[in-house]
Amino acid sequence: MKNNVSFFSLIEQDIEILNKNLQNMVGAKHPILYAAAEHLFKAGGKRIRPVIVLLASKTTSDDGTILNSQRRLAEITEIIHTASLVHDDVLDDCSTRRGIQTVHNTFDTKIAVLAGDFLFAQSSWYLANLGQLNVVKIISKVITDFAEGEVRQGSTHFDISVSVENYIEKSFYKTASLIAASSQGAAMLTQKKEEIYNSLYSYGKHLGLAFQIIDDVLDVTSSSQVLGKPQGADLINGNLTAPILFTIAEDKGVSQYINREFREKNDIDNCLQIIQNNKGIQKSKDLASEHIQTALSCLDCLDQKNQYVIGLKKLANYTLERLY
Amino acid sequence: MKNNVSFFSLIEQDIEILNKNLQNMVGAKHPILYAAAEHLFKAGGKRIRPVIVLLASKTTSDDGTILNSQRRLAEITEIIHTASLVHDDVLDDCSTRRGIQTVHNTFDTKIAVLAGDFLFAQSSWYLANLGQLNVVKIISKVITDFAEGEVRQGSTHFDISVSVENYIEKSFYKTASLIAASSQGAAMLTQKKEEIYNSLYSYGKHLGLAFQIIDDVLDVTSSSQVLGKPQGADLINGNLTAPILFTIAEDKGVSQYINREFREKNDIDNCLQIIQNNKGIQKSKDLASEHIQTALSCLDCLDQKNQYVIGLKKLANYTLERLY
Repeated sequence: MKNNVSFFSLIEQDIEILNKNLQNMVGAKHPILYAAAEHLFKAGGKRIRPVIVLLASKTTSDDGTILNSQRRLAEITEIIHTASLVHDDVLDDCSTRRGIQTVHNTFDTKIAVLAGDFLFAQSSWYLANLGQLNVVKIISKVITDFAEGEVRQGSTHFDISVSVENYIEKSFYKTASLIAASSQGAAMLTQKKEEIYNSLYSYGKHLGLAFQIIDDVLDVTSSSQVLGKPQGADLINGNLTAPILFTIAEDKGVSQYINREFREKNDIDNCLQIIQNNKGIQKSKDLASEHIQTALSCLDCLDQKNQYVIGLKKLANYTLERLY
Repeated sequence: MKNNVSFFSLIEQDIEILNKNLQNMVGAKHPILYAAAEHLFKAGGKRIRPVIVLLASKTTSDDGTILNSQRRLAEITEIIHTASLVHDDVLDDCSTRRGIQTVHNTFDTKIAVLAGDFLFAQSSWYLANLGQLNVVKIISKVITDFAEGEVRQGSTHFDISVSVENYIEKSFYKTASLIAASSQGAAMLTQKKEEIYNSLYSYGKHLGLAFQIIDDVLDVTSSSQVLGKPQGADLINGNLTAPILFTIAEDKGVSQYINREFREKNDIDNCLQIIQNNKGIQKSKDLASEHIQTALSCLDCLDQKNQYVIGLKKLANYTLERLY
């Protein structure tokens, strides 16, 4: 998250507190696990998930106070996200993540599996200690969704018959579920009305879907340097995302490369070029934009003058701006 | 668990119910995960953990009734155990488990990581739905302990300076923690006195430690056919268990083989032979026996005439009989 975006100042100090707490929370008794985890936490990432949880929390109080349990939920959300990244790396065989060496390349697969397990376990433990069962339930469900999403992704590698609906469903499990449940959880912790829970859930869900679509567009349009990982990494792994699926529907030329799993020289470059010169990217941007519009409309039942509600709206619009 | 042992008849029907429920609970939406999980659930295993939870549950009611939440806890315990086995297989590179191909050899590492994540996540979800926070907390702690235990084990591979105390600590994290917490949890679900929680926790802890020591003795004394995995598998992996550590203390001859990580032909066979002809095995049996005695004494505060308390005692003694 860049510090110069307008809504960031609303929770800048809270993110600093979060960063410190994360360091302490994952301070495992064992140096290897600590190193494996610290490694990713230090690298930073965008902290988009905690930003959403913290802003959502602020909307639920009259004076923008964040409860300790809401801070903890923001931290848990980032720990779960990091755990999923660590196991993702094992699954993706992707050699870099966030621009640095992945845990499983640096420390080998075994430590990556363990570090991920450890982080998931830590998050479950902190979650239980929040002492609110409805929040424990919705967040536990998210972790089940991750595995579901990963398997769906894995089982459709290089499958050009995958539909965009299918892709959206998978993106829900993989990305949107956590954002939706943690925004909802923030409201649950202040015992607000069910209408508010549901609105924040839907806001998070559609924001998360847009976020995934945008990431998938950037994967084929940005340079490796900007991405911090190889351009077209999804494509190379056979993970067929929105821009690719829309292109397949328009130009069957790409299918031959995908069907032969990029076995021949230049297959990836040729495929990327077709995608970049095609309407698939614009269609994906439009799809992301639709989800952002839906996310914004989900906030209609909240106080439109509340600066944190305005912050959540700015965050949604900012997400989309990354594309342009 | 053999059907001909005297205490088994006390919970035989309950184990049948459990087996059916486990099949339904892990009935994932996705066939690959289902296959990966079913695979191990079908293979059966000893179901020692659910047997303990079910017997412990029966001791906490006047008429031996098991609450639905206690049945669920027994199922959750077996799911957590299975999840840890699936990830263990990735960590151990062990080619067979329970006499059948391991998940990660059959389905490859990725599916093994996912199937383990999925099972851990399912267990967290079912746990949250038990609706009792104190139980959620103690069981969540167990999953953190697993990662701790595995890292400790991994970081002391082939390290002949490891102490027996260190080995016991690691065995607590790896094995005893789950058995202890789930026995305790069974009592918590009937809201019994704290004294009972603590007794069942300690019973489970010492039984679990004995169980691990006995497994480690059998690893070096039983044939591959009986074990369902290669004889000396721990030793080959550099996992120095009780019989090996006691032997190192007595006969430094084994250290040379371990220090060179069994690089030369016959190193493993020579090492196994020294261990088998040494007092290390008897010392390990004595250590297991001590823990069984402690486990038995932990039941002193329970009704000594209650048939299920007698069942828990028989189970402890039966565990030891496997050695002779």
